[in-house]
Amino acid sequence: MMILGDWGTSVCRLYLCQFIDEQLTVVDRKAGPGSKKDLDLEQSFFNLCSDWLEEFGRVPVFLIGTVGSNIGWKLVPYVSCPTDQHQLLASAMSFDARGVPFTIFPGLSCQNRHKLPDVMRGEETQIFGFLSQQPNHPAEQLVCLPGTHTKWALLEHDSISSFITSPVGELFEVLSNHSVLLNPIDDDSWDQKGFSEGLDIGLSKTSNIIHTLFATRAKQVLNNQSNTQASCFLSGLLIGADVKAAMQDFHLFSNVVLIGSSKINSLYEVALNKLNIRTEHYTSEWATTCGLQALTSERWKQLDERS
Amino acid sequence: MMILGDWGTSVCRLYLCQFIDEQLTVVDRKAGPGSKKDLDLEQSFFNLCSDWLEEFGRVPVFLIGTVGSNIGWKLVPYVSCPTDQHQLLASAMSFDARGVPFTIFPGLSCQNRHKLPDVMRGEETQIFGFLSQQPNHPAEQLVCLPGTHTKWALLEHDSISSFITSPVGELFEVLSNHSVLLNPIDDDSWDQKGFSEGLDIGLSKTSNIIHTLFATRAKQVLNNQSNTQASCFLSGLLIGADVKAAMQDFHLFSNVVLIGSSKINSLYEVALNKLNIRTEHYTSEWATTCGLQALTSERWKQLDERS
Repeated sequence: MMILGDWGTSVCRLYLCQFIDEQLTVVDRKAGPGSKKDLDLEQSFFNLCSDWLEEFGRVPVFLIGTVGSNIGWKLVPYVSCPTDQHQLLASAMSFDARGVPFTIFPGLSCQNRHKLPDVMRGEETQIFGFLSQQPNHPAEQLVCLPGTHTKWALLEHDSISSFITSPVGELFEVLSNHSVLLNPIDDDSWDQKGFSEGLDIGLSKTSNIIHTLFATRAKQVLNNQSNTQASCFLSGLLIGADVKAAMQDFHLFSNVVLIGSSKINSLYEVALNKLNIRTEHYTSEWATTCGLQALTSERWKQLDERS
Repeated sequence: MMILGDWGTSVCRLYLCQFIDEQLTVVDRKAGPGSKKDLDLEQSFFNLCSDWLEEFGRVPVFLIGTVGSNIGWKLVPYVSCPTDQHQLLASAMSFDARGVPFTIFPGLSCQNRHKLPDVMRGEETQIFGFLSQQPNHPAEQLVCLPGTHTKWALLEHDSISSFITSPVGELFEVLSNHSVLLNPIDDDSWDQKGFSEGLDIGLSKTSNIIHTLFATRAKQVLNNQSNTQASCFLSGLLIGADVKAAMQDFHLFSNVVLIGSSKINSLYEVALNKLNIRTEHYTSEWATTCGLQALTSERWKQLDERS
């Protein structure tokens, strides 16, 4: 029995797991506050898991995400790209708290395609999770992990060679909540036409996001577009601009792997398909647990070999 | 005696003016809340100007800005580009309130270079103000009005033929206040090196704002940059990206007219000078009062001719 967790900025997801027939199986789940809340993270962990620890004793805990950053619990320095799963594992930090053995895995850093520094924490584990399940993956592969901070990662064999971050989800959120471009949408309303229109403009070779964003407001003012239409237009515009930029930054791939929530994966799929790029999808939870299984299995092997 | 005013989204600026030797002269100033506050704008006007009206009687009032929009006092429809000062004047709306004669000037709309709808309210008057003081201006001129919603306007003779909006100031503000990229700066601290670095990246042909924004955070995490350095980096990045996009959208001009606050004008000047483009600067207040003078003088002429 062990506890695996992805403790990000906005949410902490913990999985109680067990190896059943050599397959790591999630037997229970918990979610708690992210690390951006000004919390005592140790206390927060023990509050969240008291019943599991009571039932199963001091089981080992393996964590990824901002829990290892300067706004987290313990600072685990970034590993620079290119790097693989073995280096990630070798740079993990282990410590005991209240008698429970914890391991926090590091994030990755790189110089991205624009010669700028870039960082990720958590997505690397999802990528290694995907790789662990694809023994015959191509020598070179582009993976997109869409979300608050969309990552585009270039894989070469078993390594992550470089990546780039696109704060698409965060831009959408701050513009919805705090700008004159539109108002927040609090329901699930969706306008496919608005999304497609934004997507086409974002993807078009001559458009530039800084000069097309304001159309979100102008369309409401001049064309009486609703807030839902404007919101979907903005969503399409941002995703289109991100996909276009990624195609300029990386080689033109005929296939991109998407790892994210089903909804956001499907929006990126539409964008990539418009450029005749095929996609495969995986959910973040699947990739996270596969990645943590791959890392913890190696850890167990190492511990076995030492003993 | 008359009252001229630029009643924008965030602030209302009113000027008590008098013609002295045929020159409109500002004799007093007032500032009040913008139209985005959910106010009774008529009441707000009379509260603000009660002493002026008491002293000088029911003097005429001329207003520009969002006061004429759907979040303003009276909806004055947009005039489409290309257009000149005469059409703007012909589309003004006049009405009486509490015995005071008001005129609200319309804003402009256009299809911009990306074939998207675009709108401005207030900047057109500043542009006509600039034109009124430059009888020998070139047949074609690019004017930049940097600010919350930076406008790039193409002038042909005495007309505004098209324009584009770049929400640079608003992006900077929402990202400073509501994203993980940086925290708001509440003092006047400035880091020239950070600004220059951001500017160079924003202006570079291969960079893309959606893929370079996140460096604002990564530089703090990996290179221990301060929040001030990061803030100036982001400012440079956004201005650089805006200037680069404008140079792609419009013909390459060797000279650009800047109309804005002294601080923001000087930042855009640095950016344009890096591309070997000369600049002339004018302040927004100067351009606004010149524009309102040009419009109101014509109005007086019309009224004179009718009588």
